[in-house]
Amino acid sequence: MPVIFWLVPVSSVLALGFAYYFFKQMMACDEGTDMMKKIAEHVRRGASAYLRQQYKIVILVFLAITVIFSILAYGLGVQNPWVPFAFITGGLFSGLAGFFGMKAATFASGRVANACRTSLDAGLRLAFRSGAVMGLVVVGLVLLDISGWFIILNYFIPETGDGYKLMTITAVMLTFGMGASTQALFARVGGGIYTKAADVGADLVGKIEAGIPEDDPRNPATIADNVGDNVGDVAGMGADLFESFAASILATALLGSAAFMNYGLEVQTSAVVAPMIIAAMGTLLSIAGVFMVRTKEGATQKQLLHSLGFGVNFSAVLIVLASFGILYFLGLPNYLGIWGAIVVGLLSGIGIGQSTEYFTASAYRPTQKIAMSSETGPATVIISGIGTGLISAAVPLGIIVVAITLAYSFATGFSFDVASLNYGLYGVGVAAVGMLSTLGITLATDAYGPIADNAGGNAEMSGLGPEVRKRTDALDALGNTTAATGKGFAIGSAALTALALLASYFEEVRIMFVKFLDRPNELINGVPAIEAQFIDFVHHYEIHLMNPIVIVGIFLGVMSVFLFSGMTMNAVGRAAQKMVSEVRRQFKSIPGIMEGKAEPDYARCVAISTKGAQKEMMFPSLIALFIPVLVGIVFGVAGIAGLLLGTISSGFALAIFMANAGGAWDNAKKYIEEGHCGGKGSEGHKAAVIGDTVGDPFKDTSGPSLNILIKLMVMASVVTVGVAVSYHIL
Amino acid sequence: MPVIFWLVPVSSVLALGFAYYFFKQMMACDEGTDMMKKIAEHVRRGASAYLRQQYKIVILVFLAITVIFSILAYGLGVQNPWVPFAFITGGLFSGLAGFFGMKAATFASGRVANACRTSLDAGLRLAFRSGAVMGLVVVGLVLLDISGWFIILNYFIPETGDGYKLMTITAVMLTFGMGASTQALFARVGGGIYTKAADVGADLVGKIEAGIPEDDPRNPATIADNVGDNVGDVAGMGADLFESFAASILATALLGSAAFMNYGLEVQTSAVVAPMIIAAMGTLLSIAGVFMVRTKEGATQKQLLHSLGFGVNFSAVLIVLASFGILYFLGLPNYLGIWGAIVVGLLSGIGIGQSTEYFTASAYRPTQKIAMSSETGPATVIISGIGTGLISAAVPLGIIVVAITLAYSFATGFSFDVASLNYGLYGVGVAAVGMLSTLGITLATDAYGPIADNAGGNAEMSGLGPEVRKRTDALDALGNTTAATGKGFAIGSAALTALALLASYFEEVRIMFVKFLDRPNELINGVPAIEAQFIDFVHHYEIHLMNPIVIVGIFLGVMSVFLFSGMTMNAVGRAAQKMVSEVRRQFKSIPGIMEGKAEPDYARCVAISTKGAQKEMMFPSLIALFIPVLVGIVFGVAGIAGLLLGTISSGFALAIFMANAGGAWDNAKKYIEEGHCGGKGSEGHKAAVIGDTVGDPFKDTSGPSLNILIKLMVMASVVTVGVAVSYHIL
Repeated sequence: MPVIFWLVPVSSVLALGFAYYFFKQMMACDEGTDMMKKIAEHVRRGASAYLRQQYKIVILVFLAITVIFSILAYGLGVQNPWVPFAFITGGLFSGLAGFFGMKAATFASGRVANACRTSLDAGLRLAFRSGAVMGLVVVGLVLLDISGWFIILNYFIPETGDGYKLMTITAVMLTFGMGASTQALFARVGGGIYTKAADVGADLVGKIEAGIPEDDPRNPATIADNVGDNVGDVAGMGADLFESFAASILATALLGSAAFMNYGLEVQTSAVVAPMIIAAMGTLLSIAGVFMVRTKEGATQKQLLHSLGFGVNFSAVLIVLASFGILYFLGLPNYLGIWGAIVVGLLSGIGIGQSTEYFTASAYRPTQKIAMSSETGPATVIISGIGTGLISAAVPLGIIVVAITLAYSFATGFSFDVASLNYGLYGVGVAAVGMLSTLGITLATDAYGPIADNAGGNAEMSGLGPEVRKRTDALDALGNTTAATGKGFAIGSAALTALALLASYFEEVRIMFVKFLDRPNELINGVPAIEAQFIDFVHHYEIHLMNPIVIVGIFLGVMSVFLFSGMTMNAVGRAAQKMVSEVRRQFKSIPGIMEGKAEPDYARCVAISTKGAQKEMMFPSLIALFIPVLVGIVFGVAGIAGLLLGTISSGFALAIFMANAGGAWDNAKKYIEEGHCGGKGSEGHKAAVIGDTVGDPFKDTSGPSLNILIKLMVMASVVTVGVAVSYHIL
Repeated sequence: MPVIFWLVPVSSVLALGFAYYFFKQMMACDEGTDMMKKIAEHVRRGASAYLRQQYKIVILVFLAITVIFSILAYGLGVQNPWVPFAFITGGLFSGLAGFFGMKAATFASGRVANACRTSLDAGLRLAFRSGAVMGLVVVGLVLLDISGWFIILNYFIPETGDGYKLMTITAVMLTFGMGASTQALFARVGGGIYTKAADVGADLVGKIEAGIPEDDPRNPATIADNVGDNVGDVAGMGADLFESFAASILATALLGSAAFMNYGLEVQTSAVVAPMIIAAMGTLLSIAGVFMVRTKEGATQKQLLHSLGFGVNFSAVLIVLASFGILYFLGLPNYLGIWGAIVVGLLSGIGIGQSTEYFTASAYRPTQKIAMSSETGPATVIISGIGTGLISAAVPLGIIVVAITLAYSFATGFSFDVASLNYGLYGVGVAAVGMLSTLGITLATDAYGPIADNAGGNAEMSGLGPEVRKRTDALDALGNTTAATGKGFAIGSAALTALALLASYFEEVRIMFVKFLDRPNELINGVPAIEAQFIDFVHHYEIHLMNPIVIVGIFLGVMSVFLFSGMTMNAVGRAAQKMVSEVRRQFKSIPGIMEGKAEPDYARCVAISTKGAQKEMMFPSLIALFIPVLVGIVFGVAGIAGLLLGTISSGFALAIFMANAGGAWDNAKKYIEEGHCGGKGSEGHKAAVIGDTVGDPFKDTSGPSLNILIKLMVMASVVTVGVAVSYHIL
């Protein structure tokens, strides 16, 4: 093993150590007045209650899935005793990351509100470093698990001398991603339904019917709403990116071991560890970047954004330089091309973030036009939001198209021959790793958002002065921008990761096929062996576009995406309606509640959101897990191949559409509240609030859940590859 | 040529003859009072003005496109002098069909209103037979053009003896479809924008702001709204199905000539003419079906639906029997399997129609739930409508998946070998023809809808008694149901047709490839020639799913669909806002308008819709035409293959989502107006009206335009096949 591999466990320990350090630092801060403490405690208790309930169910489901998928994978395909364990640690570590991240966030928000009583800089730094706890725990745990498994498997799995050892190791490790995906799906879908049921319910009765402001303590759903920010945006987002980070590294490792199989053990090992080391280096640079984020009192929104951006860009620029060094040191053939793919990945992440900002920030035309359309009522707000959202999906799709083409071309030296296919796919994987390499700090800017939001809520509910509220508002507004770009980044990385996983899927099928064929490495009918093998492979499984089964698969993939999104949308609708009834009931039946004399029953609203989320998340999640298995059984590899491409392409587009439409509606509303187009309280404002409410499940439930769907469906196919290969009907 | 081929021109002449007969019959009816005549004249003039303006622009665009695509097709690929002429007749005939259909509809609506003064049966029969004018003109002109071209080309193109003559004929004829597609796109997009700009504008100011009822003569946009029904729902729908009908027959003919190339001229000819003869027979049965439609006074909605259904089912049942006879008589090998494919096509058309009805009719749970969600305001109406719409897309996708699988399997005798691929694709094409065979009558039930709607408008505006209004309302309500199922049918047939066209695309590429290879018909390296050829073909163009260019193509296809839908949505939003301003202006500046003393300036609203539609339709339409050309130039055949599958699959899903969500919102509103969930005038009703307004561009602009997009993009690829094959960059 190359010596710089040890950077991976080292950076993992450092990341976890700094996370602990930031956590301790945050805990040492004062939580403020008694009222502030009480409110923070409410939110904390609600969040813990949700997580306890969630994990209770998820553990059961997880065990069931482990057994079923172990049978499917183990009994029929990959004969390897390590698979179920890798699967379980994936779920466990992902759950831990969510748990720690959320703990930190719920401890932090009250303290951030309190810090804002001192200065804006204190508030920003505290909020951001508390967000960094989440970021660093996520990357730390991923790297810990990956390096741990790699060392263990490298020790136990016997050397074969033909390159198959590393193939086996990386194939086993990939199932770690499956565990993480499964856990992430429940976190995203459950958290998404929870947070939006609470939010929509609180807004519809509180803001619209009763006319009380957001985060008003008289609103019974307001605690549930604040809890929701934590379980949805912190724990859910964390689990999502945990999964992307892990899966992109693992898929690329597998692709590397396949591409460089015939280059000897040393080069092959380099190709396998390269993505891990780049991720490790990115993590170290992220830690450094976190320390760069600071601001001064009275900073404008632009300056605040600049401070965050400085930290992120600092890490990004340095990883570009560092990864060049790493690849050069590892001595991979065409290291320059592979480095190009990393840069492509990083740039396309930035590009997608920028396009998200353009389409959702009120500084630009699209969102302003939506705000203006409020003049003619809610219908035109919805129409223009949907129109803009649909168009906005085209840009990231275009960026990904360019990214795939360039990453592939760089890695193969612009050859589209079959013989260079594997290098190209490795390039696409490496691009995904590049995009995610500085996840430690980008995730910190993401998790910062809900912390600032909750700090604002705390300040409002505990009646702190307008000076404090103004500071938390500045932090919160910033959080909305970082959340939007964060969402763009999450979905962009999900698409690239899913494509890398898809390539791994083909790789696993091909290995089974080549083993079965046992072709010698020479000319076959005048065609070089690798090319002949490949032609045979495509022909054997008929994974070409004239095969009706492939076409059927693509249709089924699109179908899964639409079904899943529709179900999650309806789930929010149902859960929100229960919340609405409960809030109305409390307003009616608790005397003195509207005068602020009696405390509403917060816990009951928390319980309704929790129960609703648990109940509603099951069915869509099972779809994601079992459709690939069923399609594999009925239609075989060709059906799966179509299914996955249909899912990834349409899921990606729908996810961006939903996230951007939702973000734009949110900011159009805020733009009006700033005094444009009639301002707060006008008919136009009411119309914009309706748009914002429609956008809630778009941007926080269905949209982000699709990120996981597209990855999990590929993962489920990878794990059950043996079924599709050997036991299909058609 | 088999003697029963002559059924095709004969049925064509009969269809056109009966269309003329129904038209004359209708024109002989009395148009009612002077007021009724005046209003009908207004609508007629508006519709003609639009169509004149539309055709003026379309002719110019058409000429430009003919030149460009002729250069692309003729100069670089297919060297055949007939191509531009086939292209032009396609556009011309499609335009004629729209023109006659709309003429008939605008002459009919006043007369239908007048007939309703006598009896319900008289109204239904007149409306339906006027709709049949459109249905029969469409199928008549398609069959006329197809049989004409077939006879001409068969005479002029020399016999080659190896089956290539029929391949060439069918390939040339396919460009007829391209002309029809292009014309259909402008008709659908332009008409869709027109009708919804008028409708949304009229509703927003009239219904919501001024509180006057629908179709109130005081509303300046009301004539434009009624004109819109004609240009969007009659001319647009007609052009759409004209294109599906033509393309499904032509693609299947091409697939038949390829599949049965080695069976001798007689069998090959039979395979080519089979889809034409089935369509001809379906047309004759449609004429018979039209005469079956009648009802008695005081008929319930259910009985009315039953009368229409009887006519449609009569034709459908008989075509099942007749097509068996035709195939048997033509002596095609495996005629039983091909007949099975026809039945599959017919059944899946019915299935998609039923699923549309389930998801959009107020008699069923989904729409009722949307209505109930109005209790918590417009946001939940929109959320549940979108949720339900997304889920509803899954069912037709599932039906198409089953249809493809079964049609393919029946036609190949359940073989998924490469050697039987061509028979299977022929089976898929035949299924599309089966679904569309009775188009004459199904289109009549479609065109009937806007006629009844306009009759209601005429009755309202000319102040006829409540008895008459009740009758026109009964006809109109029925029209809404037939329109919804009609839309489901249009999109279902578009998907199957697009898949048949895609297969033709591959066929054309394969022919160029095989010609270029000139393989002898024997074993090649131990593999039978056809299989070896096929493997070479897939390999040569790399149309397999591991090729990143295919993946990139799929992403670009999804991108095109989202971009196109977003642009058409926004186009309606922009055009509607202009209409809103104009209506507001007239309400303010014309004294006595609200008291009914002064006449509003209808013509100005008509002009605004016309201009808006012309301006807004250009850019999305050019996207549809030129994206395939660009992708072909950059990425070649593999990119095109991916592009088309991405477009068809995601376009199909998005089209159903939009059509069903829109239909469900519309009917949820009507359900409330019938007295449920608070009834007319309640807050819930207002919320439902907002849902309905959002649904307007969904179901009448973007949704149906996608039908054309998915067909036109394949068509454009087929015509420019030579570019992608010979001149691509990557």
